[in-house]
Amino acid sequence: MKNLVGACMFGQSGGPTSVINSSAAGVFTEALKQGNITAVYGAEHGILGILNEKFFDMSKEDPKELELLKYTPSSALGSARYKLKDASVDDTDYKRILEVFKKYNVRYFFYNGGNDSMDTCNKISKYLQSVGYECNVIGVPKTIDNDLFGTDHCPGFASAAKYIATTIMEVDLDAKVYDFGCVCIIEAMGRNAGWLTAAAKLANHKGAGADLIYLPEVPFDIDQFVEDVKGVCAKNNNKCIAVVSEGIKDKDGRYISEGKAGANDGFGHAQLGGLAARLAAIIKENLNVKVRPIELSLMQRCGAHLASKQDVEEAFAAGAFAVKSACEGETDKMVIFERDMTGGQYKCNCVLMPLELAANTEKTVPLEWITDNGTGISDAYVDYALPLIQGDAKAPLEDGLPRFAKLKKVYAGK
Amino acid sequence: MKNLVGACMFGQSGGPTSVINSSAAGVFTEALKQGNITAVYGAEHGILGILNEKFFDMSKEDPKELELLKYTPSSALGSARYKLKDASVDDTDYKRILEVFKKYNVRYFFYNGGNDSMDTCNKISKYLQSVGYECNVIGVPKTIDNDLFGTDHCPGFASAAKYIATTIMEVDLDAKVYDFGCVCIIEAMGRNAGWLTAAAKLANHKGAGADLIYLPEVPFDIDQFVEDVKGVCAKNNNKCIAVVSEGIKDKDGRYISEGKAGANDGFGHAQLGGLAARLAAIIKENLNVKVRPIELSLMQRCGAHLASKQDVEEAFAAGAFAVKSACEGETDKMVIFERDMTGGQYKCNCVLMPLELAANTEKTVPLEWITDNGTGISDAYVDYALPLIQGDAKAPLEDGLPRFAKLKKVYAGK
Repeated sequence: MKNLVGACMFGQSGGPTSVINSSAAGVFTEALKQGNITAVYGAEHGILGILNEKFFDMSKEDPKELELLKYTPSSALGSARYKLKDASVDDTDYKRILEVFKKYNVRYFFYNGGNDSMDTCNKISKYLQSVGYECNVIGVPKTIDNDLFGTDHCPGFASAAKYIATTIMEVDLDAKVYDFGCVCIIEAMGRNAGWLTAAAKLANHKGAGADLIYLPEVPFDIDQFVEDVKGVCAKNNNKCIAVVSEGIKDKDGRYISEGKAGANDGFGHAQLGGLAARLAAIIKENLNVKVRPIELSLMQRCGAHLASKQDVEEAFAAGAFAVKSACEGETDKMVIFERDMTGGQYKCNCVLMPLELAANTEKTVPLEWITDNGTGISDAYVDYALPLIQGDAKAPLEDGLPRFAKLKKVYAGK
Repeated sequence: MKNLVGACMFGQSGGPTSVINSSAAGVFTEALKQGNITAVYGAEHGILGILNEKFFDMSKEDPKELELLKYTPSSALGSARYKLKDASVDDTDYKRILEVFKKYNVRYFFYNGGNDSMDTCNKISKYLQSVGYECNVIGVPKTIDNDLFGTDHCPGFASAAKYIATTIMEVDLDAKVYDFGCVCIIEAMGRNAGWLTAAAKLANHKGAGADLIYLPEVPFDIDQFVEDVKGVCAKNNNKCIAVVSEGIKDKDGRYISEGKAGANDGFGHAQLGGLAARLAAIIKENLNVKVRPIELSLMQRCGAHLASKQDVEEAFAAGAFAVKSACEGETDKMVIFERDMTGGQYKCNCVLMPLELAANTEKTVPLEWITDNGTGISDAYVDYALPLIQGDAKAPLEDGLPRFAKLKKVYAGK
């Protein structure tokens, strides 16, 4: 398919990141320049915005605000967790999408998200092909989990990793400040892949940080964990920092965090405390030391004030490359990153991969990068991750606080 | 007392902040320039370092590293929570301090901390006077809690406030990203004073942030809290951000967080989950909405990457002013800040106040600044706090991560 003329539709999906809006800025900026693209739409809440015919006319936005999107965390258009059924089972949603695309002459579709979102994007692409509706479809990757198949890394990962490494360096200084000890248990995101939790190793690389790091790639044993912490405490005046992935599981594949499910707070209320709180309680009970559980929670994925400049720029480039590629006739593809180390210098190239390869395949941390009986990370990880977290890029300050993008959000066709 | 010639001793005490080391840099930089000061010592772990005769010769440090101290969080010399008995009850420690001061001819003593530390400083000052040992003693304020009597504000507060306001602005965007709702309950530090928790209002000032803010100055009622959240949820598609101080208490003065004490996690382990987790469980049970508890934990006091430039500079100035004042013969005083709004422009002046006025008196948020039946903060707080959080000041990046100070820590007299 070449030289399609029509509108483009863009949507954001899944958990937001510090730089997903930078990809949006890349898509919008490039699409508004393309002669073949007659209108630029941003779907409200991803696929739901298409189904509900609620999307914004992005040409109405101030270019200065689109520029600020690069430094604004979370998904500015709103996100969704809506899962499309297989078209062979129920094609209601697909028919509706086709109807909306026809009505607005949408000939370019860009969807920005992780594994599930690439699955959605792939299904829509295949359906449109099957009914012979010409529309160039390109997926734009995004996930702090860094678990998308085929790409060297994912936009959003590096900024979250930088947040985690910086925060652990700071917490390390704070938690070890007294003459008496303190065990800190820090919980990072990542259900099945430990890329983010491993970022604790970047802090170690700077001489501070985690004594113990546990990824979901390796079965977690509570008794061994107590022994590990005990060992560090014995050597280091009861001072220990352990970083755990929210997704650690026992040898039977059961999430360790599930232990919390039966808990109550003594008032009959269900206890929502997370994994870190649970492990802290176990350490407190077994070792009788001061313990502090820390959950990095939403902050690790929305801490745009600590975004990596490299990540912000790559996220923008991925969005712009998706639009350029589609306008050159590419479709049914996802943008991926290739690492180019020519001359020993890190460079990131955007290339395309068939969409169906990305959908629903998770990439985990290589087991050979996990050391010290599952409590450490090798320097290979540092070599991998360090180029990705370089540079600062953040919103300008206004009154000492970040000035995030303010979109007008004018609905199209209304 | 004038023209004392001898060594100076400096110590850091209590919970660290993002800028307590900036005050240390101010003390060291100024002391190393003063002709009357023959040696500059930094006590390891505050008062304990004096008692144990463990302190560093700061003249051995690289000036570049002392400069980096300004951007390095936590207490670089180590902190302490050691409480001195009254000299009238037991003067053992005081005699030991006098012995060490005589041995090293310490004629200047600077102590950096909050309420308890100013009490320690005051007691030492009075004891040295009572035994006729000439030593000029000046307290340097520090606390993220901002609760020291007599000063317009405290070094450390503004950087923590800036961290909280920025983080809430980011979390606000993240938590409200879906088509479905989410109640976020964010816990900030402050046992008896709500200055820090009130920083949520600064995020509101920028059009984002907290729907409900609860300070320890006002009794907290759990049933009313549920009603408050319900009200916001009804108006706003189940989206609500509530910020609570760790120190909120019921009408009988019992900490709400104490409810957690009887808890266990269903495995027989004591549950360490904090206040936010407890309130989240209550909301979940009563309103059946998605709830996320977030504890800002140590990050709010050590997040130096988000420090306020104004705060960093004022903390440095407080340290330098303490030394200059002592060298001019002042003693038994604490440095305080006076706000100068001449010409409508904020300026901060260092002045001195008698030490005994500072010791153990807590300053809380004026009740008239607390609005909306104890769920809001007035604009008077914004006018008060906004000038304090201006500007960025952070450690230079090295490999994409902060380059904090590395001290040699050469023990004196060894």
